[in-house]
Amino acid sequence: MRRLLIKNAKALVGTFPAGVSRVAGPAMAQLPVIENGWLMAEDGRITALGSMNDFPGIADWSDLTVIDATGRYVLPGWCDPHTHTVFAAPREEEFVDKINGLTYQEIAARGGGILNSAMKLRAMSEEDLFAQARERLLVMMHQGTVAVEIKSGYGLTLESELKMLRVAKRLKAELPLQVKTTLLAAHALPPEFKEDRAGYLDLICNTMIPQVVAEGLADFVDVFCETNYFTVPEMERVLEAGAAHGLPGKVHVNQFTSIGAIQAAVKQGALSVDHLEVMTEADITALASLPSTGHRERSEAIPTLLPSCSFFLRIPYAPARQLIDSGLPVALASDHNPGSTPSGNLNFVLSLACIQLRMLPEEAITALTMNAAAAMQLEGELGGLTIGKRASLLITREVPSLAYLPYAFGTDHLDTVLIDGKPVRSGEVLR
Amino acid sequence: MRRLLIKNAKALVGTFPAGVSRVAGPAMAQLPVIENGWLMAEDGRITALGSMNDFPGIADWSDLTVIDATGRYVLPGWCDPHTHTVFAAPREEEFVDKINGLTYQEIAARGGGILNSAMKLRAMSEEDLFAQARERLLVMMHQGTVAVEIKSGYGLTLESELKMLRVAKRLKAELPLQVKTTLLAAHALPPEFKEDRAGYLDLICNTMIPQVVAEGLADFVDVFCETNYFTVPEMERVLEAGAAHGLPGKVHVNQFTSIGAIQAAVKQGALSVDHLEVMTEADITALASLPSTGHRERSEAIPTLLPSCSFFLRIPYAPARQLIDSGLPVALASDHNPGSTPSGNLNFVLSLACIQLRMLPEEAITALTMNAAAAMQLEGELGGLTIGKRASLLITREVPSLAYLPYAFGTDHLDTVLIDGKPVRSGEVLR
Repeated sequence: MRRLLIKNAKALVGTFPAGVSRVAGPAMAQLPVIENGWLMAEDGRITALGSMNDFPGIADWSDLTVIDATGRYVLPGWCDPHTHTVFAAPREEEFVDKINGLTYQEIAARGGGILNSAMKLRAMSEEDLFAQARERLLVMMHQGTVAVEIKSGYGLTLESELKMLRVAKRLKAELPLQVKTTLLAAHALPPEFKEDRAGYLDLICNTMIPQVVAEGLADFVDVFCETNYFTVPEMERVLEAGAAHGLPGKVHVNQFTSIGAIQAAVKQGALSVDHLEVMTEADITALASLPSTGHRERSEAIPTLLPSCSFFLRIPYAPARQLIDSGLPVALASDHNPGSTPSGNLNFVLSLACIQLRMLPEEAITALTMNAAAAMQLEGELGGLTIGKRASLLITREVPSLAYLPYAFGTDHLDTVLIDGKPVRSGEVLR
Repeated sequence: MRRLLIKNAKALVGTFPAGVSRVAGPAMAQLPVIENGWLMAEDGRITALGSMNDFPGIADWSDLTVIDATGRYVLPGWCDPHTHTVFAAPREEEFVDKINGLTYQEIAARGGGILNSAMKLRAMSEEDLFAQARERLLVMMHQGTVAVEIKSGYGLTLESELKMLRVAKRLKAELPLQVKTTLLAAHALPPEFKEDRAGYLDLICNTMIPQVVAEGLADFVDVFCETNYFTVPEMERVLEAGAAHGLPGKVHVNQFTSIGAIQAAVKQGALSVDHLEVMTEADITALASLPSTGHRERSEAIPTLLPSCSFFLRIPYAPARQLIDSGLPVALASDHNPGSTPSGNLNFVLSLACIQLRMLPEEAITALTMNAAAAMQLEGELGGLTIGKRASLLITREVPSLAYLPYAFGTDHLDTVLIDGKPVRSGEVLR
């Protein structure tokens, strides 16, 4: 048995009661905290926690690792429910092209954009894809990420989409963090189907989804529903095919235009609706309450915001305050990908959430832990300091307050990162 | 003799010819680079460098530290010509107040703003101020900063301004990085002089400046010239008093309003004009060419931009492109301070410069090295990989290109930081 005791923590943060599956609206600011706390983990799970004032003592100190967290916060590890972190190559040359004033059309004509990534990915071996993605995930774990959703969507053929998902499955097997995978074949229309949209949709719904499910390669299905990408009816078709095979939907909607995608996704019972940079009142209403046609009382879709994408593309930020003030359970994610978000650092997302989205530090922490876990169906495993959950934890450096974490942006405030009770990063408290 | 050889560098970046004192306009994008390079340092200074194709060989390998930089870039260390990094306490509570919708007036009424920092600083011991600032500078050195300008301006009494500058002087003596100090007594009007502006200006010009100079505590003088802070004539008076005592001016201008401060600062021969978020055509013209009344052919003032401040306050970014395209030598700095910029990370400034200011990676690197050194009169010592300059160097991790450094924002790309040839951070290449 491996046992771990963290004592004298300045506070245990995010001590959500067992059974909480998401936190919505004003409750997001009421982050549960135990000041001056202790926490015990055994075999990678949290077994007990409380205030040092009520510390029961330890009878058997053998095989016990003790961490003195005086002056430091202990938080649940960050969960990242929206990434594209399996890709063939970074695209910094497009970044420079944009600074030089090239238009998206010109960059696309030079072979840029999603199709650029697709061509490179198709040409790359599974082994090389794995090695590169592994390096990225090691960096993200060092930055405090303990669970990650990974999408396909740079393959756009049966073979290459399967290749991406097999890489993700191998990452899941070989790395300690939790990995969930999503089939995003409907990311862009591949050149082979330029004149045959319906043919590509047939391929996704009749071949890719059944095969991916048969091989156990995906947990979710996704569609980039956007002007010039996939239409609302096309998204509905993919979500229906996914649902028929047991894959909940997590969809890209309202990044550039509002075209009714949210209403359709909510109706289809999507697990999450992601991006949301461009939102109408009707879109927010659709999320906050499902009209009578639905199968359930209320929308279950978790609005998942990606502020690092807005930062990098210089597009509007999602209206986080309106969403929270409408009673919704907002989650945050990195959107890590080579085109629009070349960063998987959720500590920076925490800062952006507070500085740009005007979320309170407590709201942003809830969005990166409990709600982010829920947006990838890991709410029973992660997202809180709760007995029975995985001991995947962050221990900060000595910082004056919780608000200091987002406030002092651009500086690394983590000391130690544990996944299932084992260190993936050791700082002062655990060397 | 301590000797250091760096070999097989992917490229030596910023190999400016000796004698270059700043780089202006289109030349900023022509960053001199030696591909596949080697560099030799002795006793903390660069003594030789070149391409591996012409590597002359080493006769005496005794006492030689060799770094194999295969796949890595070697750059001049970052210079930070505008900070307020000696302060009493962070102000994250004001950050939360702002998210909660409090106005500046309400925050000031609660004791916020510069005067908040002043009250806390006056109450803090020199020893505690030193210890805190030292910690901050250690973090900044880890992030690649090898020279820093530090301003007073949270004392606002003779005694407390001297205290801040003595702390900065001690930091200069005890830490390896280069430190330049600036008297910024004209940062805000202290409450004691609320009804007697002229009296405070008298104190600055007749007492503080002479005493600071007599004690060798400052290299420069600064004024926050802005609506509701100090007027243009008040700035002129302080700059004249500084000039009479040999202190060049580095001034805060055009952060919120354009009130003629640039024209006045240029006329007074200021070394740098900093902030520049709000610029008129006339302001840019004044910087790009001095009218006939001046003492020199052309403005010498270096426009010094602080994008992390714009990021945190959500105010406009300075028009970097217009400034460069007007032929000016733009510099970048952090503005590290507890109110508007709680970050001293110049790697993040590099990303902001490219993402938000639309500077090319080469322009931004020039602005953080050669021109930043010039904005603190260290161009003979730092800012380039040039024989005779200090061997204060950055060695990156293995990255695919120079553009990758700003592009992949929020992730630490540095491996090793050397100051005067000695490691202040050791990564893979130097463990």
